[in-house]
Amino acid sequence: MTVSAWSPVVHESWAQRVVFGSGTARADVAAEVAGLGATRVLVIAAEGERALAEDLCGDVPVVAVFDAVRPHVPVDVARAVRAAAHEHAADLLLSVGGGSTTGTAKAAALTTGLPVLAVPTTYAGSEATPVWGLTEDGHKRTGVDPKVLPRVVVYDATLMLSLPARLSVTSGLNALAHCVDAWWAPRHSPISAALAVEGVRSLAASLPRIVADGRDVAARRDILFGAYLGAVAFAGAGSGLHHKVCHVLGGAYDLEHAALHSVVLPHVVGLNLPAAPDAARWLGSALDDRADPFGALLALYAALDPPRSLRELGLAERELDRATDLVRAQVPHSNPRRVAQDELRELLGRAWRGDSPVLVPLTES
Amino acid sequence: MTVSAWSPVVHESWAQRVVFGSGTARADVAAEVAGLGATRVLVIAAEGERALAEDLCGDVPVVAVFDAVRPHVPVDVARAVRAAAHEHAADLLLSVGGGSTTGTAKAAALTTGLPVLAVPTTYAGSEATPVWGLTEDGHKRTGVDPKVLPRVVVYDATLMLSLPARLSVTSGLNALAHCVDAWWAPRHSPISAALAVEGVRSLAASLPRIVADGRDVAARRDILFGAYLGAVAFAGAGSGLHHKVCHVLGGAYDLEHAALHSVVLPHVVGLNLPAAPDAARWLGSALDDRADPFGALLALYAALDPPRSLRELGLAERELDRATDLVRAQVPHSNPRRVAQDELRELLGRAWRGDSPVLVPLTES
Repeated sequence: MTVSAWSPVVHESWAQRVVFGSGTARADVAAEVAGLGATRVLVIAAEGERALAEDLCGDVPVVAVFDAVRPHVPVDVARAVRAAAHEHAADLLLSVGGGSTTGTAKAAALTTGLPVLAVPTTYAGSEATPVWGLTEDGHKRTGVDPKVLPRVVVYDATLMLSLPARLSVTSGLNALAHCVDAWWAPRHSPISAALAVEGVRSLAASLPRIVADGRDVAARRDILFGAYLGAVAFAGAGSGLHHKVCHVLGGAYDLEHAALHSVVLPHVVGLNLPAAPDAARWLGSALDDRADPFGALLALYAALDPPRSLRELGLAERELDRATDLVRAQVPHSNPRRVAQDELRELLGRAWRGDSPVLVPLTES
Repeated sequence: MTVSAWSPVVHESWAQRVVFGSGTARADVAAEVAGLGATRVLVIAAEGERALAEDLCGDVPVVAVFDAVRPHVPVDVARAVRAAAHEHAADLLLSVGGGSTTGTAKAAALTTGLPVLAVPTTYAGSEATPVWGLTEDGHKRTGVDPKVLPRVVVYDATLMLSLPARLSVTSGLNALAHCVDAWWAPRHSPISAALAVEGVRSLAASLPRIVADGRDVAARRDILFGAYLGAVAFAGAGSGLHHKVCHVLGGAYDLEHAALHSVVLPHVVGLNLPAAPDAARWLGSALDDRADPFGALLALYAALDPPRSLRELGLAERELDRATDLVRAQVPHSNPRRVAQDELRELLGRAWRGDSPVLVPLTES
């Protein structure tokens, strides 16, 4: 990639140690906990992953396990996990799980300042960003604070083997959304763009392989790698239009996180791509179809067959007007095209119905 | 890129803020100094760049300028700059210059703990790594310490306009060496590899353009970008065989830094590439010649016409045996092939004479 435009000129990178492995998580976790000098570890895991977390932490000085994890980190969950950290005098927060679990650890780190060691079990990517989120009264607040960034991440491709095929796909597309949205997010830079190109390349090559065979550890490893790159790109670039749409819908209507991203992404790409020639070039390069990057994205979707509609995720059609208003107020200034109210309403309508995503031509304005 | 091998499994990234601009360095420096809250700035610049540095720092609270910069940071220079920081009660080290100048600031940061703001005027890349180096009695010691990593880097492509064509080329090839060596350095990872691929791509596309027209700011911007990516890859991956060769020769014989890297790189690539199929694939992709990556590298050299021999850099031929011994003791365990004494001596001989670099076939051993 060469740099054709430098409009946003700042790139912020973050200090983090990342360990990649296959079948080595238990030993890696023990070594990294020791490396951090921690002796009182609060483990954070959703109820369904509690047994896995306890197994992975078999060689770690655990003082308690917090398992009251809920999607989008409701504020009462944040209060409870902070209280648990205080009560047990924890010196390390160790999360085992997907984005909601990592997010719960971040919520605790935000006020306690405790370091986080994250062991991801999905491709959510939250572990590689300093972004936190809290949900209260149907609104998701997010912020950026270096102290919530996990100091260490232990990846283990074999932890993803039990991820159901559908969730593997939606979680992988959530990772793809981190990459693509980084191209037009507020702090996008040539560095985050380059990471995102490699992320898309890795995800697009490996996601179809786990649809064919969920036990393909090499493919799961490549997805992890792509998801990590996407998350780093996202951490650098911030939330673009896609993430604003998903934060609004996810926070206000409690929709399934990864599936929501899967549904929304191609519609946002269809809207922005005609106004974003750099992004079109990068997408074409990463998907190996320079002539028709959008077609290549739709072909990837066809191969993966994720959920296609907000309707099937449980959103009521009557909410679309309100959602349009909420999103419109948050369109980033960096977005490559101005987004008119009717264009946004049309986008949400198509996404709600599950219509095929379309390239939205630029209009005079 | 997908990940075919994960042998080394740890990637460490570092916290740094990077500002890219063209003609904006003075304003960016002032804003970043203010952002760091610094009020007593020690400026570090070589004598020849002192005037530039004073101009760039026109809106900054400077307490002193240290200009006794020498290549490879001799320990007496390190002592002097540390003393200056103490004497003037500096709260920020602000370097304006190439690798030796940045290195001098790092030497001061190493013992004082003061933050560094770096304004690079070459493509050396030292500003993006936590690696420090000190030279004493002909030996260069290097180490890694996060506190020497500049907290902020201000890049300005127009600062490179006055860089002579020959130094632009050798400094650019030094940056290329950061990228390529990252593929087989001790802590190489898929992340550093991906950054390095993009770095090579950007450098190879832009270096020939500044040979044609040194005033091509867009090309200078792309070189800066490639150099930054290479330096980040190098920071993650550590010193591979190429850097071990150059550290030994540079430290022991005080050879011109960037020119030395230019001369050595293709010989090390010729030695390692037959044993490094991943690196060959990445080089081929970045140079857009998958069939003959090594030939593509030599074609780039032909277009850039850098110095080709250690002889012309002033190394005496009688030193080659001793240099071979010094390098051999430092061959990284991660190197893709075992390096026999005679192979290394042959490599240094070819590099000394300026013979055309060759692919060294693998031998049974």
